[in-house]
Parts: sequence; structure tokens; C-alpha cells
Amino acid sequence: MPETDLPLDELRRYLPDRQEPADFDAFWSATLAEARGHDRPAEFTPYDARLSEVRVYDVRFPGFGGDPVAGWLLVPAAARTPRPCVVGYLGYGGGRGFPYEWLTWPAAGYVHLLMDTRGQGGSLQPGATGDPHGSAGSSSPGMVTRGIQQPADYYYRRVFTDAVRAVDAARSHPAVDSERIAVAGGSQGGGIALAAAALADGVRAAVVDQPSLCHYRRALAVVEGNAYREIWTYLRTHRDQVEQVFDTLSYFDGVNFAARATAPALFAVGLMDEICPPSTVFAAYNHYAGRKDIRVWPYNRHEGGGQHQVVHHLDFMRAVLGEAG
Amino acid sequence: MPETDLPLDELRRYLPDRQEPADFDAFWSATLAEARGHDRPAEFTPYDARLSEVRVYDVRFPGFGGDPVAGWLLVPAAARTPRPCVVGYLGYGGGRGFPYEWLTWPAAGYVHLLMDTRGQGGSLQPGATGDPHGSAGSSSPGMVTRGIQQPADYYYRRVFTDAVRAVDAARSHPAVDSERIAVAGGSQGGGIALAAAALADGVRAAVVDQPSLCHYRRALAVVEGNAYREIWTYLRTHRDQVEQVFDTLSYFDGVNFAARATAPALFAVGLMDEICPPSTVFAAYNHYAGRKDIRVWPYNRHEGGGQHQVVHHLDFMRAVLGEAG
Amino acid sequence: MPETDLPLDELRRYLPDRQEPADFDAFWSATLAEARGHDRPAEFTPYDARLSEVRVYDVRFPGFGGDPVAGWLLVPAAARTPRPCVVGYLGYGGGRGFPYEWLTWPAAGYVHLLMDTRGQGGSLQPGATGDPHGSAGSSSPGMVTRGIQQPADYYYRRVFTDAVRAVDAARSHPAVDSERIAVAGGSQGGGIALAAAALADGVRAAVVDQPSLCHYRRALAVVEGNAYREIWTYLRTHRDQVEQVFDTLSYFDGVNFAARATAPALFAVGLMDEICPPSTVFAAYNHYAGRKDIRVWPYNRHEGGGQHQVVHHLDFMRAVLGEAG
Amino acid sequence: MPETDLPLDELRRYLPDRQEPADFDAFWSATLAEARGHDRPAEFTPYDARLSEVRVYDVRFPGFGGDPVAGWLLVPAAARTPRPCVVGYLGYGGGRGFPYEWLTWPAAGYVHLLMDTRGQGGSLQPGATGDPHGSAGSSSPGMVTRGIQQPADYYYRRVFTDAVRAVDAARSHPAVDSERIAVAGGSQGGGIALAAAALADGVRAAVVDQPSLCHYRRALAVVEGNAYREIWTYLRTHRDQVEQVFDTLSYFDGVNFAARATAPALFAVGLMDEICPPSTVFAAYNHYAGRKDIRVWPYNRHEGGGQHQVVHHLDFMRAVLGEAG
Amino acid sequence: MPETDLPLDELRRYLPDRQEPADFDAFWSATLAEARGHDRPAEFTPYDARLSEVRVYDVRFPGFGGDPVAGWLLVPAAARTPRPCVVGYLGYGGGRGFPYEWLTWPAAGYVHLLMDTRGQGGSLQPGATGDPHGSAGSSSPGMVTRGIQQPADYYYRRVFTDAVRAVDAARSHPAVDSERIAVAGGSQGGGIALAAAALADGVRAAVVDQPSLCHYRRALAVVEGNAYREIWTYLRTHRDQVEQVFDTLSYFDGVNFAARATAPALFAVGLMDEICPPSTVFAAYNHYAGRKDIRVWPYNRHEGGGQHQVVHHLDFMRAVLGEAG
Amino acid sequence: MPETDLPLDELRRYLPDRQEPADFDAFWSATLAEARGHDRPAEFTPYDARLSEVRVYDVRFPGFGGDPVAGWLLVPAAARTPRPCVVGYLGYGGGRGFPYEWLTWPAAGYVHLLMDTRGQGGSLQPGATGDPHGSAGSSSPGMVTRGIQQPADYYYRRVFTDAVRAVDAARSHPAVDSERIAVAGGSQGGGIALAAAALADGVRAAVVDQPSLCHYRRALAVVEGNAYREIWTYLRTHRDQVEQVFDTLSYFDGVNFAARATAPALFAVGLMDEICPPSTVFAAYNHYAGRKDIRVWPYNRHEGGGQHQVVHHLDFMRAVLGEAG
Repeated sequence: MPETDLPLDELRRYLPDRQEPADFDAFWSATLAEARGHDRPAEFTPYDARLSEVRVYDVRFPGFGGDPVAGWLLVPAAARTPRPCVVGYLGYGGGRGFPYEWLTWPAAGYVHLLMDTRGQGGSLQPGATGDPHGSAGSSSPGMVTRGIQQPADYYYRRVFTDAVRAVDAARSHPAVDSERIAVAGGSQGGGIALAAAALADGVRAAVVDQPSLCHYRRALAVVEGNAYREIWTYLRTHRDQVEQVFDTLSYFDGVNFAARATAPALFAVGLMDEICPPSTVFAAYNHYAGRKDIRVWPYNRHEGGGQHQVVHHLDFMRAVLGEAG
Repeated sequence: MPETDLPLDELRRYLPDRQEPADFDAFWSATLAEARGHDRPAEFTPYDARLSEVRVYDVRFPGFGGDPVAGWLLVPAAARTPRPCVVGYLGYGGGRGFPYEWLTWPAAGYVHLLMDTRGQGGSLQPGATGDPHGSAGSSSPGMVTRGIQQPADYYYRRVFTDAVRAVDAARSHPAVDSERIAVAGGSQGGGIALAAAALADGVRAAVVDQPSLCHYRRALAVVEGNAYREIWTYLRTHRDQVEQVFDTLSYFDGVNFAARATAPALFAVGLMDEICPPSTVFAAYNHYAGRKDIRVWPYNRHEGGGQHQVVHHLDFMRAVLGEAG
Repeated sequence: MPETDLPLDELRRYLPDRQEPADFDAFWSATLAEARGHDRPAEFTPYDARLSEVRVYDVRFPGFGGDPVAGWLLVPAAARTPRPCVVGYLGYGGGRGFPYEWLTWPAAGYVHLLMDTRGQGGSLQPGATGDPHGSAGSSSPGMVTRGIQQPADYYYRRVFTDAVRAVDAARSHPAVDSERIAVAGGSQGGGIALAAAALADGVRAAVVDQPSLCHYRRALAVVEGNAYREIWTYLRTHRDQVEQVFDTLSYFDGVNFAARATAPALFAVGLMDEICPPSTVFAAYNHYAGRKDIRVWPYNRHEGGGQHQVVHHLDFMRAVLGEAG
Repeated sequence: MPETDLPLDELRRYLPDRQEPADFDAFWSATLAEARGHDRPAEFTPYDARLSEVRVYDVRFPGFGGDPVAGWLLVPAAARTPRPCVVGYLGYGGGRGFPYEWLTWPAAGYVHLLMDTRGQGGSLQPGATGDPHGSAGSSSPGMVTRGIQQPADYYYRRVFTDAVRAVDAARSHPAVDSERIAVAGGSQGGGIALAAAALADGVRAAVVDQPSLCHYRRALAVVEGNAYREIWTYLRTHRDQVEQVFDTLSYFDGVNFAARATAPALFAVGLMDEICPPSTVFAAYNHYAGRKDIRVWPYNRHEGGGQHQVVHHLDFMRAVLGEAG
Repeated sequence: MPETDLPLDELRRYLPDRQEPADFDAFWSATLAEARGHDRPAEFTPYDARLSEVRVYDVRFPGFGGDPVAGWLLVPAAARTPRPCVVGYLGYGGGRGFPYEWLTWPAAGYVHLLMDTRGQGGSLQPGATGDPHGSAGSSSPGMVTRGIQQPADYYYRRVFTDAVRAVDAARSHPAVDSERIAVAGGSQGGGIALAAAALADGVRAAVVDQPSLCHYRRALAVVEGNAYREIWTYLRTHRDQVEQVFDTLSYFDGVNFAARATAPALFAVGLMDEICPPSTVFAAYNHYAGRKDIRVWPYNRHEGGGQHQVVHHLDFMRAVLGEAG
Repeated sequence: MPETDLPLDELRRYLPDRQEPADFDAFWSATLAEARGHDRPAEFTPYDARLSEVRVYDVRFPGFGGDPVAGWLLVPAAARTPRPCVVGYLGYGGGRGFPYEWLTWPAAGYVHLLMDTRGQGGSLQPGATGDPHGSAGSSSPGMVTRGIQQPADYYYRRVFTDAVRAVDAARSHPAVDSERIAVAGGSQGGGIALAAAALADGVRAAVVDQPSLCHYRRALAVVEGNAYREIWTYLRTHRDQVEQVFDTLSYFDGVNFAARATAPALFAVGLMDEICPPSTVFAAYNHYAGRKDIRVWPYNRHEGGGQHQVVHHLDFMRAVLGEAG
């Protein structure tokens, strides 16, 4: 519970230099172009979730390399016309699980497309998406260091591409109002949402709760948590690859995506977050290029605003996208 | 992860003698009669949860002593006629939180009344219900040992009475089909559901996931977890009150409630549950007097079947109560 | 063992602004007046502790609301004339236990009245005093957040009132020299002693070891420990009550009591204390309005000076109150 | 809190074979004879503990090898004639600390001689006695494996001899009624008390709370705690010395001392003791050769009966030795 | 340290039924035939390890799918004629690291080929071998559940094939006496060695220290450790795949390999091993089809015999293969 | 993983004042002179380690007080002429174990004398050397506080003297080139190596990895680890001996030895070392009086550079001492 990061007033001004490779945009343009070459349409198979008030579809859309990526699409049963859609991304480790966990957006009248994270979902919440790409180098347990030796092989190249393609998939469904698509996520999902906000076409709003995958050097110097810990374990072992790893990560830093995103965004941060330290969150927030706001939860750890934040999500989305249901 | 309780085949046959006071039924009849003397109607105040597909009410109903007990009532917005209602009870520590956590039953077409647990809700999920009754004796941190010195003062006398009155409150709402009311809960909520199934009028089905508050002596000999740990801490300190405490607890043992409940019930158990050990769950299940079934999750701890179990919940409820939406 | 608070030279100068409500004194005057309206005399029942050299009494005196509060009174068997009396308060969680733990003051010739803390004593040391007042709001496990929603309901309003009435009770016993009454305690007991030193009549000396219940905002920013952790858990959950809670706590802050106390005082502090951080102790010490001294233990945690400090206690008390036996 | 040892009814009958070397008695006779050759009288230096009701002496008596062993002697100030004396031994790790911890026996009218444990007292409670004997072999941290390679060099040979000489020292003080000397201790102190009861002259009563140093093989197979853990660490490292170590330990097993002790004894045991498992306590108790009784605390760990047990101590001692004060 | 598995005499007789698919041998024949189709020769590149007494080669040999697998080959500098060779496999998580860790066999006169484990080596010891095969399903952190949905995709299909090909690679080097090749490993490496002993051609001896990857159902019921924990986490999450997972694992169970291996083998086991429980080790040992012996370390955990066991390794190898240097 | 010590640029400049007693040199001169008075020659007994490529000797040399100190001497079997020799010292707790752990230096062509640490070796790696000197005062578990009350009795007086005599012993062996002797160690062994570099005759090079036993006051203020923790535990208990203890330690501070050592030295440090904090390592490094270099491992804890550092060891040694084999 001790505050171990900067005080709030310094956080609000914290704007570190970005480490950004010269070919950042070229790298992502080429990556997305290649992925869109796999232009198989997304599949939406009705799924019997025993829910009379929500229509549920088991989704498979082509992600990086055209690989099938799973998801859920939830549509309010009462929807008669296209609705705005929130594309959601998951925190680290969990899979898409069951539709029962993703009922808030549809209850608020939105269509919700929840993207599974490839290769994850073996602990806590079951996943349904493999990562059919192996790695040429060794890795620490978990997914964060798969292919970390070079940008082209790095795991999050595939995940962030999936995230962009998830937006494309959402747009393709008739229940979705393609002019009103938002992205949302917390922790890893927040990092993915930042990438999608920067890279996907026509994202109109972004909800980013205590994002991970931001400002890696700072994170490694401040916290022990979770995904950052895996990178640390890798560096601790592969002592000769430190700069090589940070070079790879510079292509995947949420701070760099933030500087390119323009949709209105609502952030959240817990000042006692020991997984995604506040300074890394504010680094992304302060660099964020669009209209933005942030909810600060002074006594919270990585849970951030919890359900208190959901009210802000709904108000923000309504303000930006208009009434949903 | 080691299995520390009995093997499954022994669990299926495990039917320990019940410790039951002679005046068990008289105690509860008098308690409930007294509570029903506080015949103020339940209040249902519309609550703006920003949810277009669910009508949400902030509930206050009179519980033990007529004390105001909070809850949420969630009604599918599409409901035109009375629907079956599931009255839900919470696990230990949490409060009713926000409506967003309780969307599964309404998404499946049911009305859902979620009861706050008095005095809890100060950790993890915020609660909104105080326990205005103090205690004449000392207690361990947490609520489980409040008033444990004698049955009349014991905390769960108030909670179980609230649970019965929650069923009464649900029945009083026009959106509810009063002939189709079920109770449901896991862990502490499972123990409360057992009590409500035995004590409330007209409960037609019960969902009981890895219930706590069952077979206390066995639980204390097998596990370290949570609520049982608080009792253990109390006994470890008040070494001279061991029999007095177990005497009090005999009025509140889920095994004794199970032996009186007749509604069809679906149980769940995790064979590696270290909070509510399997033998205590099977003790209640095997004594349960109604039609019953149990889902056994061999590699799970206290999380039991998680969302896998929700599918069984929905199938069971539909089978017993008929279509909801 | 790392030093995580300020360096010693800064601690010695640390004098933060006090957060003090305008009606602080009125609040306490009214509270004490109400309590003294319950003017039933304290009861001292001889107790057979099998101790030939100490006369032991089981005490019940009227505390807040006139509620019976338990305690022990220990009188040196050799005492022929009234002796000075030390009124002692307990650390968090423990109850009065048995007389065997409280023999130091009587062995040094003092009468000792040890006050039980209402509602506590369910772990480690058995207590004998209930808290017959319930709470209108939810609370975290433990007592520290009971009624924290408003000053009138807050748990420590009752405890601090009990503490003042314990001094009154001590004064009423014939073995006590009513002109030589001191208060003493460590941790929670130190916080209670500060309150009693400020609020009770005729306190002549105070021993305050690493007090808790001081300078709450700072404590929550520095440590994880114990009672402060419970407040933190509450704030982490009830994210919307932060200012409300600190407003309540301002009526119960040891720093504010210190600024009103005038009896000579001996403090102690452990520089590596992770339960009651040094800056919160020095905040109270530096604001203390009477003659004062502090023992600094550089390599100690919350145990502070342990038995090394007892020698200082005895020397201090003899210097202030004169010879006891 | 789970019960991991035998059920109580089996414990009451548990009488394992003793592993006892043929020269056990010869070993101890020779050891004690050698120690008594150092016939320097014990020194009792008045110590200013600021206690008017107890006379305190800083003790130095000749122990094993004539080495000076520290202790406290506490005499009720009111004592006019020789009083019965309780010789006390310490739990593992702690030193004699300050006289304030040892006031129960003098408050009950007894003289109390508290023996420091050589070489210990560097954690928690300060000690004042070194162990001037080095060891020819390697050892694990802590004292339990010092010299464990052979009986003549083993650390507890010195400690148990000290314990016998402490009884001699007590007898030599004029305030002590030499016909009424008892020994007492818990944990390590209980193991030492068993040795003293078997080896010292004229011990009239023994108080043995959850003794350590008993039935080593069983202990190592059941628990992880404390002193036994150090032996385990040693065996885990010195894999080739297993039988050699158990051979040494057979000269120091409380079970073997129990079989030789004849003074009336009061034992205590916690059924959830994870430091000194119940079966090892009952092994000693069931082999105990004198009149005996045991208090069983079903929900306690190594704290056993705590202060509840003190009442039994005082009653037992009065019953065996007569009135003290 | 408590013994939680069977007693030693039962372990010695413990011979559980094997769960073995009918096409076990066909599965492996086809797998190995496919791998040997990639008949590129192993490459041995001299590596400057600054070691004058050992010639070190950085090895790359074709493993499963012809993928390049790294290793070290260490040859005593004094070797003038072909020497016997020990092919070594690694414990879970570590990579081949540096040659300095693998000097025992060459110091004893053997050639040593140490195989890197594909995809591992990201924690503790750096690895140099990727796993270029992705997985179609989700997985828990770590490698143990990669592709666990079906035998053809399972991670250890690739690793065990690599292990067989490592023997082929060793045989191809001129410094190796191809008639005297042994396999060796502990923990995961022990499980791999069992597979290699059963599947590779011409293995003349096997050293198997506390092997993992044996008797999975039993392991999951007894311990929490390491690799087994990952499977448990997977099953706990993917509750509907329990039988499917055990079906996959039956193709990779060391017990089934043991039943097919005929080379003389030396096993080791720690009776307090909480990572690879003794009953799973004895299950493999008791089913082992060749001449065999086992060293039992009664007070050891997963470290087993440590360096004490190395002496046995060297004696065993000399006895089976003759003098090396 | 958080960085808790100074930033690297400050570390590089960190040169704290040394606390050094006036008689530091006299103390050590007298100590060594006394030790060399025990001029019994070192014994080198051939040991059958089953290693054909290394000649192993079981060493016993006279250390402090002439006490026999064990060690291993390993000589490359191919050595025909005297070779340079590295005298190695151990980390805290471990003993010399078996020769198999010490093969790197002989594989690189060096003779290696590995010194056992007296009294240690009871956990993890077996030791063979006792500490036949007892202590006059109490101590914390472990060896670090033995005799800490005064310099003449302090444990490390004996160990550092042993270390000097180990160099003498190495020089006496015919396989050793007496003009090319180096010292090496990590953690405790690094601290010992610093002492030996300052005190022994003719040390030509020193390898010092993350040394312990340096700059004690700083260490106690920054970390919790290991040996420093034992000192802290002692000071926490013996609150009245703080200055006395630091006075003793000033005779044994690696910073003071560093200021006297002149042989070329290679240091290593892990910037996240929580056992030997970087500032204490740089304090020694920056005061080191000889030619020096340091390898900084930014993401490592106490493991420092691990095997990556070994390459630097070998390069450094070859550069300073010339070719070995």
C-alpha cells in the first residue's frame, strides 16, 4: 500500500522522452497490409448461451497471418437497428471464457465484440485461440517474451495485429453501426486498446484502464508485477540481450501508440498500482494525442476503479458515441 | 493442489451424524415470526445504472429486527409479464457492489434480487448495509464470530432471517412470478441459500455452489480457510468456550438446513477446495432432503466450476422453473 | 529492515499541519458529558488469580453509553496506603487476557488498571467486553472501520470515551491515590493513551509507545500495517468515501489529542516500524503540548524498545509521580 | 489449522519404542560428575530492576565445564522465610531478557530462578550467556546441530548439564526452601525441564508445556518447525550422517528422560501444534515414569494453553508443593 | 519437510497399472521416422570457452521437424581415442547456459553432449533453442501445456524426439565411442532420459534422478510443484478437457517409457520431494524393464542426492561402460 | 526487482568515509603473526573423486589458532609444470561440498584451492570444518554474530586469518607456481577475498563478485538479506550494544581492506542485488587501492553476472597472470 511511484502532481506533468525507432510507422503499415491480405470474412456462429435477452455469436476472424482468432459477439436481443460496438481486449493470462462475463456493454445497449488473446487463456479463464507461430529464440514462461529477440517475431506483433483485425471484424457485422466503434481494455487489454486506437481505422473512442505494455524501462525499474516481471526474468537471464530487447519493445510501446491515437479517450489509474505503475500510465496518457481524461483512484492497486469506473465508462461512451439502446 | 480430504467415492457416501439441538425448529419459528412482525413493505427505487436493457432498482427491505437491508433488483427491460426470480446471496466479505456484476440472470430472462450481507462489504466489493446490532462478547476480526456466545445473539441469526425476508421481498414485486422463486449462492452465499431453502416459504429451486457454514467441526479439522479460520481463531483464543461455540453453531449448520429443504437443488463442489472442504459440502448434499444433483470439479479449488457451472445453473433453472424470457 | 520513512533529523523537525474540525472540542465535550450521565459506580470483584503477592479485581465500569467495560485492577498485596495508579490500554486485537500479563506495574509498587478494548479480544488474547453498538454502514474486517462513515457512529468514539471513564473508575478505588494517576499504552494503546491524556481529568503522566491512530493520511501513504491497512481496504473498496472517511478520522487523530495534552509524557519510536511509521509518531510527539521526551530505537520495528523501554517507563514514572511502593 | 498428526484417542495410547543407547545413564553420570567438579558457588548480585515488590538478583552459576551461566533470581519482597522455588527454562532462541517477563511465579509467592540458555538470546529476547565451546564439525544455523556428530560434543549436553546445575544453584540460595524445588518450561524449555526432572537431585515437580527435543525421528517426519527444521536441514545436507546423528540424539531424547523422571508432572499439548507435534509430546508423556496429567488444547498450535494453562500451573504447583506465599 | 507420500516399504512395491494407448509404439515409430527424414548432419563448431583442458563445441543438430537444436559438446583435451559419451538433458526452465556448468563428465574422462531444451532457457540459465512450432490451442504459462490438446501437437513430442536425435548426433562425432553412449538427466531431464532410453538406438546406460513427467494423475493428486502445477492450472481452467489431456499425456508418460527401456539404469529419489513425488518416481522405477538400482535419500526434497549422488553416477557409469579416461 | 539503491551514476562516485579504528593494522599484524606461529605444514591427501582429468587432494591446513581447516586442491591431470593457482572462498552458509562443483578453474588450466568456511556447511553444501572456538556472548542464529561483542572474539577474525593461511598453503604445494596466486570469491567469499587481498603475501590478482561484509551501516539501512539480516536481528535484540557492534565490525569491513589491497582486481555487481546492495559494493570498489575494473549487471539480483561473469573471470586472470595451461 505504500506509494512507491511519483507524487500525483509530478505524475500529471510526467512526459518522458519516447524511445521510438525511425521505421515505427513503416513497420506497422507493412504488418497490417500483410495481415489484411488474408481477407477471409469473419465468421459469426450463433451460440446457445441460454440467454434470452442477448444474442451470442462464437466469432472466428482472421488475425495476423490469417490465423483464426476467437471471440464473442454479444448483441442485445432487443436491437432492431445497428448499434454502436465496443471491441474489448483482455488482461494478461485470461481467455475469452464464457459470454456471462461480458454482459455489461450489451446490457447498456451496445454490441460487444470480445477478442480472445492468442495463446493465452490457460489459467483462470479458458481461451480458445492458439498461437500457431513458434519462436526462434528461448523465452521465459508466459507469452511476453516470445520472439522478443526481434520485432518481426515478437508475440505482440501478432496480438496487436489481431486487435486491429478485430475492429475490422466488428465493422463487418450487420448489427454494428460501423461509424460508432470503440475499443476498450484494462491492463494488457489497455495496452492493446492503445495500439488499436492508433492503428485501426475509424476507432471513435477508447477506454484505457491502467494499461500495461507502456514505458518498459520505467516499469522494470519500479515494479515487480506480472508481465513486466517476465521481461525482467528474461533480461536477468539473457544478460547480453538488454539493448536488443528494448529495441524490440520500442515497436510495441503504448507510449508510442498513444502519441498517434486521436480518438477521444478515457483513462484510469490506481496510484498504488504495483503491476502497472502510475508513471507508466501517465507516460502514455500525457503523450496521448487525442481529447482525453483520466480518473485517478488514490487508494487502489491494479484493480483501479473497479466497478466504480464502469459508470464512467458508460457515461463517457454515451457522451462520445450517443445513445446506444 | 494436493487432495487433502476424502476420496470421491467416500465423499459420495459421507453422511455424518448431525449435531442438532432439540429446539432447532422452535428457535427458527420464533425468530422468523418476530422478524415478520416488522411488516413494512420492501422499497424498490429506480436506479440509473446507464443500462438500457435492464431495469435496475435499489432495494431496501426489512430484515431481522426490521432493519433495512439493501439489495439490487434487476428486471429484463423486455419483460412484459411476471418472470421467475432468483434471489441471490453473496460470498463472504463482499457487498452488493454495482449492478454490473449481476447481469447473468437478467440476461437469461430472470428477475434477480441480490441481497447485500449486513455489515459486510468493506473489502473488495462495497456493501450498503450495516449491522445495527452490537455484540455482548468479544469477537475475532470479520463477522463470523459476532455474538457466537449464544444463538440468540449470533450474527447469522440476523443474516439467515434477512435471507428469508429477501424471498418475501422478491415475491412482493409485480415483475416477479411469485410461484417461481429460486435461491442461489456460492460459498457463504451457498450456506445462506441452504438456510433460505429450508426456512423461506415457497422456494422452488436452489443453487448451492461449494457452500460454507456447513459441518463446522469437520471444516475446522480439515482446512484453514477464510470464515472457518475466524472461528478457529476465536476458539484458539477463547479456549474455554469450545463447546459453547459449537452449541451455538448447531443452530446455524447448513447440514441441518439441508435436512429440512425440499426444493430441487443443484450443488457444486471442487475436490481441491481448501476453503470449503469437499466433505463438508457432501455432508450437506447427502443430507439434503429434496431432489438433488451435484457437479463435481476434480481439479478445482474454491472457485469450483466457475463459469462452466453457470451453464448448469441455467439448464437446471430452466428444467425446474420453465422458460424465463 | 530498510528504512522507508524520513531520516531521523527530519523526523525530529517533522511538524505537519493538523487536520482538525472546528467542532473538535465541542464534539468531545458533548460525548463525555453524555457518557458521564451514566453514573453507575465501577464494580471491583475480587478474582482468585492464585497470586499471593497481588490483589486482583475483575473490573466492570460504565463506558460509552454506560456499557459495561471490563478490566483488571491489580494492587500490590503489601500496599497499606493509596498508591499511584497506571491506567493501561491495549494494542489492537488483543483483550485483557489474564492478570499474569500485567504484573510489571504492581511489581513496581503501582496499582494498575488495565482496560479491555470493547469488541476486541477474539484473537491472541481473550477479551471480555462486547461492543453492543452496531453500525449503520458496511465495514472491513476488524474494528477500525466500524461506523467510520460519521464521527458520531465511529468505533473509537466509544473506545476513547471508555478510556476516559477508565481513569474515572481508577480514581474511585480506595487503593488508588487519586492525585497520582497516569495513562500508558503502546500501538493502539498509545493512541488511546494520547486521547485519554487530552480528555480525562487529572492525568499526571503519559507513557506512549509507538502509538497508532495518528496522522492517518501519512500512515496510509507509508505503511501496510495492521489497523491502517483496514482503513486502506475500506477506502480501496468505498472509493467514493475518501474525504468523508478522513473527515471522520480528524475527530480521532492522535495528533489533535497531542496538541491538547499537558501531562509530562514519555514516547518511544522504532525507526524501522512498519506498522506505525516513525513520521506519524513524531507528528504526534512534535505536536505534544506538555513536557516530553522520546526514546528512539534505530534498529527496531513495531516492537520498539521492548523490555529495554520498560526501564525507561519505570524511571519516568518515578521521576514524575514519586516513589510508588 | 488442519490436524496433521494422529487423532486424540490414538495419541493417548501412543507409546513408541524408545531408541536408547546402552550407556545412556553412564554417559549422564559421568557428564554430571565432571560438571560438579567445578564447585564454585553460584553468585547472586542484587539488580536494580526498579521493582519494589520483588527482590531481583543477577545470577551467575557454574554450568557445564564450570562455564558461567546467567539467570535471574526473583524473590517476593514480602518473603520472610524460605519459599518453594521454580527453576525455569527458556524456549528456543530467546535469552533471559529482563526480569519483567518472569513475574508470575514471584507474584504467586514462589522464588523463581530463570536460566539463560547458553549461546542463545540473539533474537527477540537478549541473552547474557555465551557458549565458550566450539565444535569440531560443521553445523546448520542455530544451535541445535552444534556438535551433533557425537554425544560428547553435542550442544545439549552442555545445556542439560547447565539445567541440572541451575537446580543446584537454586538450592544454594537462602531464600529457597531446598525441599520444594520444581522445574518448568515450554517448547525447548519443556525438553530441558524433562532432562532436569530426570537428572537433577530432588526435583519435586515438573511443568512441561508442549516440549521440544522429543522423539526426533517422528518429529522430522511430521513437522517443519523451528529446531527440528534445523536438524532436518543438517541431514538434508550431510546425507551420509543420518544414523550418526540419530545416534547422538538418542542421548538427548526427552522420551528417554521421561522414562526416568519420577516427580509429579503436568504436561500440556496443542493438538494443532506444528512446531512440536502432538505425537512427540504424547510419546514423552506416555513414557513419563512419575505421577502425571496432561491438558489437551484441541484448537491450539504451539502456543498451547497460553495463559489459560498458567492457572493450571499454579493449581498444580500448590497441590504438589503446598502454599507458597 | 513432512512426509506426504507413501512410506518407503509401500513405495518399493508400488506398481500402478499403466495407462497406455494402443498405438503408443506406432505413434513413436512414425514420429521418429519422420524426424530422421531430416538427415542433415549435426554441426560441431569449436567454441572458445577459455578452457585449456576441455575442447568445447557449440552444437546444432536437427531435431523434431529438422529444427536446429543447440547443445554443447565437451571433450577432454587429453582424449586421444574415442571416449564413451553421456548425453545429458536439462531440468525444467533452464537452458544450456555456459559450458562451465557441465564439466563433471569431461573431468571424469567422458565426452558429454548437453542438449538444450527447445523454447526453454528464459529463466535462470539462458537457452539458445527456440521452438518454431506454435500451438492450435490455449496454454498455461510455461511449456508443459503447449499443444496438450492432442498427442501430435504436444510439446514433449518435439522434445523427446530431439532427445533421440541428440543421441544420434553424439554418435556421429569422431571423439565418441559409438558403442558406449549413455543418457542422463534429473527432474524434467530424468523424464527425457527415460524417453530416450526407450526410444533411441543403442543407449547403453541411463541415469535418472527424481524424474518428472511420470504418472501424471498421481502427481497431480499429491504435489503442487512446478511442471505438474502447470498441467493442474490448465485442467482447473479447461474443466471440460480433463480426459482429453490425460489421453494426450499417456503418450508421454515416463512409466510407459520405463516399461520399454532395457539399458542398465540408476535412479535416485528424495522421499520428501514435493516437485516429483516419490510414488511417481517409484512407479517408473518399478516398471523399468532393464537392470536397475535406486538411491533413496530419506531427508531430501527435489534436490535428491545432490553431489552425493554424483559419486554414484560415476561409479555406475564406470561399472557399466568401463573406464573412460 | 525495483531499484532501491542509488542510481548508477551516483554509485560510480559513491565514496563514503571509512570508519576505521586506529589500531586496524596492528590488530591484523598481531593476529596473523599469532596464526603463523602454528607452522604445521598443510596436508594434501589424494582423494578418489573418480576424475581421470583432475588430480584431487583433500586439504587440511592450519588456520587461526592452528585449527585444521579443510579444502580441496584440484590440479589439472595434464599439468607437468607448476601452474598459477586460484584460492577460492565460499558464499555464506555453504561448505566445500564435493570437488565436482569446483571444476572451472582446473578446466581452464589453473590449480584451484577451495577453502572450507569454518563452522558453516550445515545447509545446502556440506562442510568439513568446525569452529572450535566458542563465544563469550550470545548470538543470533548463523555465524555472523558469533563473538561480535569484541574484535578479538569475532568469528570473522578467525575466517579471514584462515583465508590468509589458505594462500600460504597453496604456495606450499609443488604443483603451484608461487608467483602466480590469485584470490576469488562471491558474496561472503568476495568479502573474504578482499580481506585476503589486503592481508596475504603475494596475492597477484583478485576476483570479487558482489561482496558481502562491506560498509555495514549502509547495508543495514538498505537491505534485509542474509548475513546482514543476522546483524540486524542482533542489534534489534541487543539494543544497548549498537555502537559496540559497529566498533567490532570496523575491524572487518571490506571497505577498509579494499583501501589496502594493491593487486589488480575485477569486481562485479548486480544493480538489483537485495542481499549485497550496490552501494556497499561500490563503496569497496571505489576505495580499492589497486588497478581495478567492475562489471555492472543492471537487471540482476545477488546472482550478479552468473556464468556470464565467468568469461570475464577467465579473461581477467589470463590477462593478469598469463596463460595457465
